[in-house]
Amino acid sequence: MPEFCIVLVEPKYSGNIGSVARCMKNFGVSELYLVNPCELDDAAYMMAVHADNILDRAKIFSRFEDAIRDLDLAVATTSVIEEHRKACLRKAYTPKELLEIIKGFNGKVGIVFGREDYGLYNEEIKECDLLLTIPTSKEYPSMNLSHAVAIVLYELFSCRFDRRVKDRNIGVVEKEKFIEFFNKVLELIDYPDHKKEKARITFRRALGRARLTELEYHTLMGIVNGIIEKLRSK
Amino acid sequence: MPEFCIVLVEPKYSGNIGSVARCMKNFGVSELYLVNPCELDDAAYMMAVHADNILDRAKIFSRFEDAIRDLDLAVATTSVIEEHRKACLRKAYTPKELLEIIKGFNGKVGIVFGREDYGLYNEEIKECDLLLTIPTSKEYPSMNLSHAVAIVLYELFSCRFDRRVKDRNIGVVEKEKFIEFFNKVLELIDYPDHKKEKARITFRRALGRARLTELEYHTLMGIVNGIIEKLRSK
Repeated sequence: MPEFCIVLVEPKYSGNIGSVARCMKNFGVSELYLVNPCELDDAAYMMAVHADNILDRAKIFSRFEDAIRDLDLAVATTSVIEEHRKACLRKAYTPKELLEIIKGFNGKVGIVFGREDYGLYNEEIKECDLLLTIPTSKEYPSMNLSHAVAIVLYELFSCRFDRRVKDRNIGVVEKEKFIEFFNKVLELIDYPDHKKEKARITFRRALGRARLTELEYHTLMGIVNGIIEKLRSK
Repeated sequence: MPEFCIVLVEPKYSGNIGSVARCMKNFGVSELYLVNPCELDDAAYMMAVHADNILDRAKIFSRFEDAIRDLDLAVATTSVIEEHRKACLRKAYTPKELLEIIKGFNGKVGIVFGREDYGLYNEEIKECDLLLTIPTSKEYPSMNLSHAVAIVLYELFSCRFDRRVKDRNIGVVEKEKFIEFFNKVLELIDYPDHKKEKARITFRRALGRARLTELEYHTLMGIVNGIIEKLRSK
Protein backbone atom coordinates (compact mmCIF):
# COMPACT_ATOMS: atom_id res chain seq x y z
CA MET A 1 0.00 0.00 0.00
CA PRO A 2 1.56 3.34 -0.98
CA GLU A 3 1.76 6.33 1.38
CA PHE A 4 0.59 9.58 -0.13
CA CYS A 5 1.55 13.21 0.06
CA ILE A 6 0.19 16.27 -1.68
CA VAL A 7 2.68 18.74 -3.16
CA LEU A 8 1.49 22.26 -4.05
CA VAL A 9 3.89 24.25 -6.20
CA GLU A 10 3.83 28.02 -5.66
CA PRO A 11 0.19 28.31 -4.55
CA LYS A 12 -0.81 31.99 -4.62
CA TYR A 13 -4.00 32.02 -2.54
CA SER A 14 -3.79 30.88 1.05
CA GLY A 15 -7.50 30.02 1.09
CA ASN A 16 -6.76 27.37 -1.51
CA ILE A 17 -4.05 25.84 0.67
CA GLY A 18 -6.54 25.66 3.54
CA SER A 19 -9.18 24.07 1.30
CA VAL A 20 -6.65 21.50 0.15
CA ALA A 21 -5.82 20.67 3.78
CA ARG A 22 -9.51 20.13 4.54
CA CYS A 23 -9.91 17.75 1.57
CA MET A 24 -6.79 15.87 2.68
CA LYS A 25 -8.26 15.35 6.12
CA ASN A 26 -11.59 14.27 4.59
CA PHE A 27 -9.70 11.47 2.87
CA GLY A 28 -7.22 10.65 5.62
CA VAL A 29 -4.06 12.07 3.99
CA SER A 30 -1.89 14.20 6.25
CA GLU A 31 1.38 15.04 4.56
CA LEU A 32 1.44 18.38 2.73
CA TYR A 33 4.51 19.74 0.92
CA LEU A 34 4.52 23.38 -0.18
CA VAL A 35 7.01 24.77 -2.67
CA ASN A 36 7.53 28.49 -2.32
CA PRO A 37 3.96 29.16 -1.11
CA CYS A 38 2.20 32.41 -0.21
CA GLU A 39 1.91 33.15 3.51
CA LEU A 40 -0.28 30.72 5.51
CA ASP A 41 -2.49 33.47 6.93
CA ASP A 42 -5.96 33.45 8.54
CA ALA A 43 -7.69 32.66 5.23
CA ALA A 44 -5.81 29.35 5.07
CA TYR A 45 -6.86 28.37 8.59
CA MET A 46 -10.42 29.50 7.99
CA MET A 47 -10.79 27.27 4.94
CA ALA A 48 -8.97 24.35 6.62
CA VAL A 49 -11.61 24.27 9.41
CA HIS A 50 -10.62 21.14 11.38
CA ALA A 51 -7.52 20.41 9.30
CA ASP A 52 -5.36 23.09 10.94
CA ASN A 53 -2.90 20.40 12.09
CA ILE A 54 -2.14 19.60 8.46
CA LEU A 55 -1.24 23.25 7.83
CA ASP A 56 0.85 23.42 11.01
CA ARG A 57 2.89 20.41 9.95
CA ALA A 58 3.21 21.25 6.23
CA LYS A 59 6.79 21.01 4.97
CA ILE A 60 7.93 24.12 3.14
CA PHE A 61 10.55 23.99 0.38
CA SER A 62 12.07 26.78 -1.63
CA ARG A 63 12.94 24.60 -4.61
CA PHE A 64 10.84 22.11 -6.58
CA GLU A 65 13.68 19.57 -6.73
CA ASP A 66 13.90 19.43 -2.94
CA ALA A 67 10.18 18.77 -2.56
CA ILE A 68 10.12 15.79 -4.90
CA ARG A 69 13.46 14.34 -3.74
CA ASP A 70 11.94 11.80 -1.32
CA LEU A 71 8.98 10.78 -3.50
CA ASP A 72 9.25 7.24 -4.78
CA LEU A 73 6.67 8.10 -7.41
CA ALA A 74 6.04 11.73 -8.34
CA VAL A 75 2.74 12.27 -10.16
CA ALA A 76 2.38 15.62 -11.92
CA THR A 77 -1.08 16.99 -12.70
CA THR A 78 -2.30 19.15 -15.57
CA SER A 79 -5.42 20.25 -17.43
CA VAL A 80 -3.39 20.78 -20.62
CA ILE A 81 -2.82 17.49 -22.38
CA GLU A 82 -1.66 16.48 -25.82
CA GLU A 83 -4.35 14.54 -27.62
CA HIS A 84 -2.45 13.27 -30.64
CA ARG A 85 -0.89 9.85 -31.05
CA LYS A 86 2.73 10.95 -30.84
CA ALA A 87 2.29 12.85 -27.56
CA CYS A 88 5.03 12.34 -24.99
CA LEU A 89 5.49 14.94 -22.24
CA ARG A 90 1.81 15.76 -21.93
CA LYS A 91 0.40 12.30 -22.45
CA ALA A 92 -1.67 11.88 -19.32
CA TYR A 93 -3.49 9.27 -17.27
CA THR A 94 -6.89 9.69 -15.62
CA PRO A 95 -7.36 9.31 -11.85
CA LYS A 96 -9.04 5.92 -12.41
CA GLU A 97 -6.03 4.73 -14.39
CA LEU A 98 -3.64 6.06 -11.74
CA LEU A 99 -5.50 4.06 -9.11
CA GLU A 100 -4.89 0.90 -11.15
CA ILE A 101 -1.23 1.71 -11.76
CA ILE A 102 -0.31 2.39 -8.13
CA LYS A 103 -2.54 -0.28 -6.55
CA GLY A 104 0.33 -2.55 -5.64
CA PHE A 105 2.98 0.16 -5.33
CA ASN A 106 5.01 0.03 -2.13
CA GLY A 107 6.50 3.43 -1.43
CA LYS A 108 5.72 7.11 -1.20
CA VAL A 109 3.51 8.62 -3.90
CA GLY A 110 3.37 12.41 -4.22
CA ILE A 111 0.64 14.09 -6.25
CA VAL A 112 2.02 17.39 -7.50
CA PHE A 113 -0.28 20.31 -8.31
CA GLY A 114 0.91 23.49 -10.02
CA ARG A 115 0.14 27.19 -9.74
CA GLU A 116 -3.49 28.37 -9.83
CA ASP A 117 -2.92 30.37 -13.01
CA TYR A 118 -0.20 28.51 -14.86
CA GLY A 119 -0.07 24.98 -13.51
CA LEU A 120 3.26 23.17 -13.61
CA TYR A 121 6.04 24.21 -15.95
CA ASN A 122 7.23 21.71 -18.55
CA GLU A 123 10.55 21.49 -16.73
CA GLU A 124 8.70 20.39 -13.58
CA ILE A 125 6.52 17.86 -15.41
CA LYS A 126 9.69 16.37 -16.91
CA GLU A 127 10.99 15.63 -13.42
CA CYS A 128 7.88 13.63 -12.48
CA ASP A 129 7.23 9.95 -13.19
CA LEU A 130 3.64 10.12 -14.40
CA LEU A 131 1.23 12.79 -15.59
CA LEU A 132 -2.37 12.91 -14.42
CA THR A 133 -5.35 14.80 -15.82
CA ILE A 134 -8.99 15.04 -14.77
CA PRO A 135 -11.21 14.65 -17.84
CA THR A 136 -13.31 17.83 -18.02
CA SER A 137 -15.31 19.78 -20.55
CA LYS A 138 -13.14 21.11 -23.36
CA GLU A 139 -14.95 24.42 -23.06
CA TYR A 140 -13.75 25.08 -19.52
CA PRO A 141 -11.09 22.59 -18.43
CA SER A 142 -9.46 24.74 -15.76
CA MET A 143 -10.53 23.65 -12.29
CA ASN A 144 -10.03 25.39 -9.00
CA LEU A 145 -6.88 23.96 -7.38
CA SER A 146 -8.54 22.51 -4.28
CA HIS A 147 -11.34 20.95 -6.34
CA ALA A 148 -8.78 19.13 -8.45
CA VAL A 149 -7.12 17.85 -5.25
CA ALA A 150 -10.52 16.75 -3.88
CA ILE A 151 -11.31 14.74 -7.01
CA VAL A 152 -7.95 12.99 -7.13
CA LEU A 153 -8.12 12.09 -3.43
CA TYR A 154 -11.71 10.89 -3.82
CA GLU A 155 -10.70 8.55 -6.63
CA LEU A 156 -7.69 7.18 -4.75
CA PHE A 157 -9.29 6.82 -1.33
CA SER A 158 -13.05 6.52 -1.39
CA CYS A 159 -12.84 2.74 -1.79
CA ARG A 160 -11.05 2.59 1.56
CA PHE A 161 -13.74 4.51 3.38
CA ASP A 162 -16.88 2.70 2.40
CA ARG A 163 -18.31 1.95 5.85
CA ARG A 164 -21.73 0.87 4.74
CA VAL A 165 -23.26 -2.47 5.62
CA LYS A 166 -23.99 -4.22 2.35
CA ASP A 167 -27.49 -5.61 2.10
CA ARG A 168 -28.38 -8.96 0.64
CA ASN A 169 -30.66 -8.74 -2.36
CA ILE A 170 -33.69 -10.96 -2.59
CA GLY A 171 -33.26 -14.30 -4.31
CA VAL A 172 -35.47 -16.62 -6.32
CA VAL A 173 -37.62 -17.72 -3.34
CA GLU A 174 -38.62 -14.17 -2.37
CA LYS A 175 -39.05 -13.14 -5.97
CA GLU A 176 -41.44 -15.98 -6.76
CA LYS A 177 -43.36 -15.34 -3.53
CA PHE A 178 -43.76 -11.69 -4.52
CA ILE A 179 -45.05 -12.69 -7.96
CA GLU A 180 -47.42 -15.21 -6.39
CA PHE A 181 -48.87 -12.45 -4.19
CA PHE A 182 -49.10 -10.16 -7.22
CA ASN A 183 -51.15 -12.85 -8.96
CA LYS A 184 -53.47 -13.09 -5.96
CA VAL A 185 -54.06 -9.35 -6.15
CA LEU A 186 -54.89 -9.64 -9.86
CA GLU A 187 -57.48 -12.31 -9.03
CA LEU A 188 -59.02 -10.37 -6.18
CA ILE A 189 -59.49 -7.21 -8.23
CA ASP A 190 -60.99 -9.23 -11.14
CA TYR A 191 -58.27 -8.06 -13.49
CA PRO A 192 -59.27 -9.13 -17.04
CA ASP A 193 -57.82 -12.55 -17.93
CA HIS A 194 -56.56 -11.49 -21.38
CA LYS A 195 -54.45 -8.73 -19.81
CA LYS A 196 -52.93 -10.84 -17.05
CA GLU A 197 -49.92 -12.13 -18.93
CA LYS A 198 -48.74 -8.69 -19.92
CA ALA A 199 -49.27 -7.43 -16.36
CA ARG A 200 -47.21 -10.31 -14.96
CA ILE A 201 -44.37 -9.75 -17.39
CA THR A 202 -44.39 -6.03 -16.65
CA PHE A 203 -44.28 -6.66 -12.92
CA ARG A 204 -41.52 -9.24 -13.20
CA ARG A 205 -39.37 -6.91 -15.29
CA ALA A 206 -39.81 -3.98 -12.91
CA LEU A 207 -39.00 -6.30 -10.00
CA GLY A 208 -35.90 -7.50 -11.83
CA ARG A 209 -34.60 -3.96 -12.24
CA ALA A 210 -35.51 -2.87 -8.72
CA ARG A 211 -33.05 -5.35 -7.16
CA LEU A 212 -34.85 -5.23 -3.82
CA THR A 213 -32.97 -5.85 -0.62
CA GLU A 214 -34.35 -8.36 1.86
CA LEU A 215 -35.50 -5.57 4.17
CA GLU A 216 -37.27 -3.73 1.38
CA TYR A 217 -38.90 -7.00 0.34
CA HIS A 218 -40.30 -7.65 3.82
CA THR A 219 -41.71 -4.14 4.09
CA LEU A 220 -43.34 -4.28 0.66
CA MET A 221 -44.65 -7.84 1.12
CA GLY A 222 -46.25 -6.76 4.40
CA ILE A 223 -48.16 -4.14 2.46
CA VAL A 224 -49.18 -6.49 -0.35
CA ASN A 225 -50.36 -8.96 2.28
CA GLY A 226 -52.41 -6.19 3.87
CA ILE A 227 -53.98 -5.43 0.50
CA ILE A 228 -54.88 -9.09 -0.04
CA GLU A 229 -56.43 -9.48 3.41
CA LYS A 230 -58.47 -6.30 3.00
CA LEU A 231 -59.70 -7.39 -0.43
CA ARG A 232 -60.67 -10.84 0.90
CA SER A 233 -62.65 -9.39 3.79
CA LYS A 234 -64.80 -7.33 1.40
CA MET B 1 -29.15 9.75 -21.24
CA PRO B 2 -30.37 11.77 -18.25
CA GLU B 3 -30.17 15.56 -18.05
CA PHE B 4 -28.73 16.88 -14.83
CA CYS B 5 -29.29 19.81 -12.56
CA ILE B 6 -27.67 20.82 -9.29
CA VAL B 7 -29.93 21.95 -6.45
CA LEU B 8 -28.42 23.88 -3.52
CA VAL B 9 -30.69 24.20 -0.50
CA GLU B 10 -30.20 27.37 1.56
CA PRO B 11 -26.51 27.93 0.79
CA LYS B 12 -25.12 30.52 3.21
CA TYR B 13 -21.86 31.57 1.53
CA SER B 14 -22.05 33.10 -1.91
CA GLY B 15 -18.45 32.08 -2.64
CA ASN B 16 -19.58 28.46 -2.39
CA ILE B 17 -22.34 29.05 -4.93
CA GLY B 18 -19.77 30.54 -7.31
CA SER B 19 -17.41 27.59 -6.78
CA VAL B 20 -20.26 25.19 -7.50
CA ALA B 21 -21.02 27.05 -10.74
CA ARG B 22 -17.38 26.75 -11.82
CA CYS B 23 -17.36 22.97 -11.16
CA MET B 24 -20.59 22.64 -13.09
CA LYS B 25 -19.06 24.37 -16.10
CA ASN B 26 -15.93 22.19 -15.78
CA PHE B 27 -18.19 19.17 -16.25
CA GLY B 28 -20.62 20.63 -18.77
CA VAL B 29 -23.68 20.95 -16.47
CA SER B 30 -25.52 24.26 -16.71
CA GLU B 31 -28.74 24.12 -14.74
CA LEU B 32 -28.51 25.43 -11.17
CA TYR B 33 -31.49 25.58 -8.79
CA LEU B 34 -31.16 27.58 -5.57
CA VAL B 35 -33.59 27.24 -2.67
CA ASN B 36 -33.70 30.32 -0.48
CA PRO B 37 -30.02 31.22 -1.09
CA CYS B 38 -27.88 34.04 0.28
CA GLU B 39 -27.38 37.00 -2.04
CA LEU B 40 -25.37 36.28 -5.22
CA ASP B 41 -22.83 39.02 -4.59
CA ASP B 42 -19.31 39.70 -5.94
CA ALA B 43 -17.82 36.76 -4.04
CA ALA B 44 -20.05 34.38 -6.02
CA TYR B 45 -18.97 35.85 -9.36
CA MET B 46 -15.31 35.92 -8.31
CA MET B 47 -15.32 32.20 -7.49
CA ALA B 48 -17.37 31.32 -10.58
CA VAL B 49 -14.65 32.80 -12.86
CA HIS B 50 -15.89 31.87 -16.36
CA ALA B 51 -19.12 30.29 -15.13
CA ASP B 52 -20.92 33.61 -14.53
CA ASN B 53 -23.60 32.61 -17.05
CA ILE B 54 -24.59 29.71 -14.81
CA LEU B 55 -25.13 32.11 -11.91
CA ASP B 56 -27.05 34.55 -14.12
CA ARG B 57 -29.44 31.83 -15.23
CA ALA B 58 -29.83 30.07 -11.86
CA LYS B 59 -33.46 29.44 -10.91
CA ILE B 60 -34.34 30.66 -7.46
CA PHE B 61 -37.07 29.03 -5.35
CA SER B 62 -38.36 29.95 -1.94
CA ARG B 63 -39.59 26.46 -1.09
CA PHE B 64 -37.85 23.09 -1.31
CA GLU B 65 -40.94 21.38 -2.76
CA ASP B 66 -41.02 23.79 -5.70
CA ALA B 67 -37.38 23.17 -6.56
CA ILE B 68 -37.72 19.39 -6.77
CA ARG B 69 -41.14 19.42 -8.46
CA ASP B 70 -39.81 18.98 -12.01
CA LEU B 71 -37.06 16.46 -11.16
CA ASP B 72 -37.78 12.99 -12.52
CA LEU B 73 -35.23 11.64 -10.08
CA ALA B 74 -34.25 13.68 -7.02
CA VAL B 75 -30.99 12.52 -5.42
CA ALA B 76 -30.34 13.85 -1.91
CA THR B 77 -26.79 13.99 -0.56
CA THR B 78 -25.45 13.58 2.97
CA SER B 79 -22.32 12.84 4.96
CA VAL B 80 -24.39 11.38 7.78
CA ILE B 81 -25.39 7.81 7.01
CA GLU B 82 -26.79 4.91 8.98
CA GLU B 83 -24.41 1.99 8.97
CA HIS B 84 -26.56 -0.74 10.46
CA ARG B 85 -28.50 -3.39 8.58
CA LYS B 86 -31.97 -2.04 9.28
CA ALA B 87 -31.19 1.47 8.04
CA CYS B 88 -33.87 3.07 5.89
CA LEU B 89 -33.91 6.88 5.52
CA ARG B 90 -30.15 7.32 5.68
CA LYS B 91 -29.14 4.23 3.78
CA ALA B 92 -27.00 5.75 1.04
CA TYR B 93 -25.39 4.95 -2.29
CA THR B 94 -21.90 5.99 -3.38
CA PRO B 95 -21.33 8.13 -6.48
CA LYS B 96 -20.05 5.06 -8.35
CA GLU B 97 -23.25 3.19 -7.52
CA LEU B 98 -25.37 6.17 -8.56
CA LEU B 99 -23.62 6.22 -11.93
CA GLU B 100 -24.66 2.58 -12.42
CA ILE B 101 -28.24 3.17 -11.30
CA ILE B 102 -28.91 6.15 -13.55
CA LYS B 103 -26.94 4.97 -16.58
CA GLY B 104 -29.99 4.18 -18.64
CA PHE B 105 -32.32 6.69 -16.99
CA ASN B 106 -34.20 8.91 -19.40
CA GLY B 107 -35.30 12.06 -17.64
CA LYS B 108 -34.12 14.89 -15.45
CA VAL B 109 -31.88 13.99 -12.51
CA GLY B 110 -31.34 16.60 -9.78
CA ILE B 111 -28.53 16.22 -7.26
CA VAL B 112 -29.61 18.02 -4.10
CA PHE B 113 -27.05 19.43 -1.66
CA GLY B 114 -27.95 20.80 1.78
CA ARG B 115 -26.78 23.67 3.96
CA GLU B 116 -23.06 24.09 4.65
CA ASP B 117 -23.55 23.55 8.38
CA TYR B 118 -26.53 21.25 8.65
CA GLY B 119 -26.95 19.52 5.32
CA LEU B 120 -30.47 18.47 4.35
CA TYR B 121 -33.24 18.00 6.91
CA ASN B 122 -34.77 14.56 7.28
CA GLU B 123 -38.02 15.94 5.88
CA GLU B 124 -36.18 16.98 2.71
CA ILE B 125 -34.35 13.66 2.35
CA LYS B 126 -37.73 11.90 2.62
CA GLU B 127 -38.96 13.79 -0.44
CA CYS B 128 -36.05 12.56 -2.57
CA ASP B 129 -35.82 9.28 -4.47
CA LEU B 130 -32.27 8.24 -3.61
CA LEU B 131 -29.64 9.19 -1.05
CA LEU B 132 -26.00 9.66 -2.01
CA THR B 133 -22.89 9.83 0.18
CA ILE B 134 -19.21 10.32 -0.60
CA PRO B 135 -17.17 7.79 1.37
CA THR B 136 -14.75 9.81 3.51
CA SER B 137 -12.66 9.39 6.62
CA LYS B 138 -14.77 8.76 9.69
CA GLU B 139 -12.61 11.25 11.57
CA TYR B 140 -13.60 14.18 9.40
CA PRO B 141 -16.46 13.34 7.05
CA SER B 142 -17.76 16.87 6.52
CA MET B 143 -16.67 18.21 3.13
CA ASN B 144 -16.84 21.72 1.81
CA LEU B 145 -20.07 22.05 -0.22
CA SER B 146 -18.44 22.84 -3.57
CA HIS B 147 -15.91 20.02 -3.15
CA ALA B 148 -18.73 17.55 -2.67
CA VAL B 149 -20.39 18.87 -5.86
CA ALA B 150 -17.07 18.59 -7.73
CA ILE B 151 -16.63 14.95 -6.73
CA VAL B 152 -20.16 13.91 -7.66
CA LEU B 153 -19.95 15.66 -11.04
CA TYR B 154 -16.52 14.14 -11.67
CA GLU B 155 -17.90 10.65 -11.06
CA LEU B 156 -20.94 11.17 -13.25
CA PHE B 157 -19.25 12.99 -16.12
CA SER B 158 -15.54 12.32 -16.40
CA CYS B 159 -16.18 9.27 -18.59
CA ARG B 160 -17.84 11.54 -21.14
CA PHE B 161 -14.89 13.90 -21.35
CA ASP B 162 -12.00 11.56 -21.92
CA ARG B 163 -10.52 13.13 -25.06
CA ARG B 164 -7.28 11.22 -25.06
CA VAL B 165 -6.10 9.16 -27.98
CA LYS B 166 -5.73 5.61 -26.71
CA ASP B 167 -2.41 4.02 -27.61
CA ARG B 168 -1.94 0.48 -28.75
CA ASN B 169 0.20 -1.58 -26.44
CA ILE B 170 2.98 -3.71 -27.85
CA GLY B 171 2.11 -7.29 -28.71
CA VAL B 172 3.96 -10.58 -28.83
CA VAL B 173 6.09 -9.68 -31.86
CA GLU B 174 7.52 -6.51 -30.32
CA LYS B 175 7.91 -8.16 -26.94
CA GLU B 176 9.95 -11.07 -28.30
CA LYS B 177 12.04 -8.66 -30.40
CA PHE B 178 12.81 -6.64 -27.27
CA ILE B 179 13.84 -9.77 -25.38
CA GLU B 180 15.99 -10.90 -28.33
CA PHE B 181 17.83 -7.54 -28.23
CA PHE B 182 18.19 -7.84 -24.46
CA ASN B 183 19.85 -11.23 -24.99
CA LYS B 184 22.25 -9.69 -27.51
CA VAL B 185 23.25 -7.08 -24.94
CA LEU B 186 23.90 -9.82 -22.37
CA GLU B 187 26.19 -11.57 -24.86
CA LEU B 188 28.05 -8.41 -25.79
CA ILE B 189 28.79 -7.45 -22.19
CA ASP B 190 29.93 -11.01 -21.38
CA TYR B 191 27.26 -11.41 -18.74
CA PRO B 192 28.01 -14.64 -16.79
CA ASP B 193 26.17 -17.62 -18.28
CA HIS B 194 24.87 -18.94 -14.96
CA LYS B 195 23.15 -15.62 -14.25
CA LYS B 196 21.52 -15.22 -17.64
CA GLU B 197 18.31 -17.10 -16.95
CA LYS B 198 17.48 -15.03 -13.90
CA ALA B 199 18.29 -11.83 -15.79
CA ARG B 200 15.99 -12.84 -18.66
CA ILE B 201 13.11 -13.69 -16.33
CA THR B 202 13.56 -10.43 -14.44
CA PHE B 203 13.54 -8.45 -17.67
CA ARG B 204 10.49 -10.25 -19.03
CA ARG B 205 8.52 -9.66 -15.83
CA ALA B 206 9.40 -5.96 -15.74
CA LEU B 207 8.45 -5.68 -19.42
CA GLY B 208 5.16 -7.44 -18.69
CA ARG B 209 4.24 -4.92 -16.01
CA ALA B 210 5.41 -1.91 -18.00
CA ARG B 211 2.76 -2.47 -20.70
CA LEU B 212 4.72 -0.38 -23.21
CA THR B 213 2.89 1.47 -25.94
CA GLU B 214 4.09 1.08 -29.52
CA LEU B 215 5.64 4.55 -29.48
CA GLU B 216 7.50 3.90 -26.25
CA TYR B 217 8.71 0.61 -27.67
CA HIS B 218 10.17 2.25 -30.77
CA THR B 219 11.99 4.90 -28.73
CA LEU B 220 13.44 2.37 -26.30
CA MET B 221 14.36 -0.14 -29.03
CA GLY B 222 16.21 2.64 -30.87
CA ILE B 223 18.33 3.11 -27.77
CA VAL B 224 18.95 -0.61 -27.23
CA ASN B 225 19.96 -0.86 -30.88
CA GLY B 226 22.37 2.04 -30.36
CA ILE B 227 23.88 0.21 -27.37
CA ILE B 228 24.35 -2.98 -29.41
CA GLU B 229 26.00 -1.17 -32.32
CA LYS B 230 28.35 0.70 -30.01
CA LEU B 231 29.29 -2.51 -28.18
CA ARG B 232 29.92 -4.33 -31.46
CA SER B 233 32.20 -1.58 -32.77
CA LYS B 234 34.44 -1.83 -29.71
